[in-house]
Amino acid sequence: MKNCLLVVDMQVGLFGMETPRFDSENVIKRINQLSVSIRENNGKIIFIQHNDAKGECLEPGTPQWEILPELIRQKSDLLINKTANSAFYKTNLEQVLAGLKPDQLIITGCATDFCVDSTIKSAVNRDFAVTVVTDTHTTADRPHLDAETIIKHYNFVWEHLLIPDQKVKMKETETLLKEIKSN
Amino acid sequence: MKNCLLVVDMQVGLFGMETPRFDSENVIKRINQLSVSIRENNGKIIFIQHNDAKGECLEPGTPQWEILPELIRQKSDLLINKTANSAFYKTNLEQVLAGLKPDQLIITGCATDFCVDSTIKSAVNRDFAVTVVTDTHTTADRPHLDAETIIKHYNFVWEHLLIPDQKVKMKETETLLKEIKSN
Repeated sequence: MKNCLLVVDMQVGLFGMETPRFDSENVIKRINQLSVSIRENNGKIIFIQHNDAKGECLEPGTPQWEILPELIRQKSDLLINKTANSAFYKTNLEQVLAGLKPDQLIITGCATDFCVDSTIKSAVNRDFAVTVVTDTHTTADRPHLDAETIIKHYNFVWEHLLIPDQKVKMKETETLLKEIKSN
Repeated sequence: MKNCLLVVDMQVGLFGMETPRFDSENVIKRINQLSVSIRENNGKIIFIQHNDAKGECLEPGTPQWEILPELIRQKSDLLINKTANSAFYKTNLEQVLAGLKPDQLIITGCATDFCVDSTIKSAVNRDFAVTVVTDTHTTADRPHLDAETIIKHYNFVWEHLLIPDQKVKMKETETLLKEIKSN
């Protein structure tokens, strides 16, 4: 399989008024552009959905826990639930990807500095060929930093991660869409 | 075993003139305070040393690759070489720690946003009880951010990492030294 798209934690409760996410409308739009194109070209979409404990923001079964309704989904997509930042922590994601054998594991979603970062690092440490979409992950302002600066910093970090004989590929949505269509 | 101290990548080549590290003299001093106290109290010190490829900054066998001579070392300490950001990537660190069974895996070193962060996330994902020493890791200025802000941000992120039934403990050197001595 050429492309597998991971969409991390794009859930209603993380896009509320209390934690506005940088450029969220465009991030949602770009995830849809990518997922439509990847499905058309025989790739696979995997939504990652975080399960919080009872009484917390993303409690399973609550409206807050649902994947954002603005995201286009199809029956052929997969959904994997997780309980930690990394989507690989005590889930079957590794086995699923071992079966799919993607040439490119494309990672998008929320939040840049938590679940997206932890998932990228777990994927890289398992030797998957990771591509980060530089303009299709987002976060909120933090005590010491605004969201836009955090996004720039993590794009810098991922680009410079050290793994022997490997590099995380950093691509904008527009570039990636052209590549997917031309393959 | 009560305490195991990881000292990540405190190597000559990372503390040169080109990449000044925030508060590096104090970070070195505090690592020494911790290692002396942990050895005295039957803990273990593990130095992590990064091996770059030939011709790169931390090429094995070069003076740049050596652990900083300012750090106090003893024969009872362990040394583990790594080739990726995470000290767990294709090393025997996990097996070593499984043997030592520390109540507290204390993580320090350089760089905050690369090898320290990757190692903390790998340790947490393996369910080790991680303690980060908030004032005893360091980094350099990056294109979008100064080192001091990066350190504050990563302390915030680690404090808020999500793992079921677990929390990364965040302690200053002074607090940790008191705890070690009183146990």
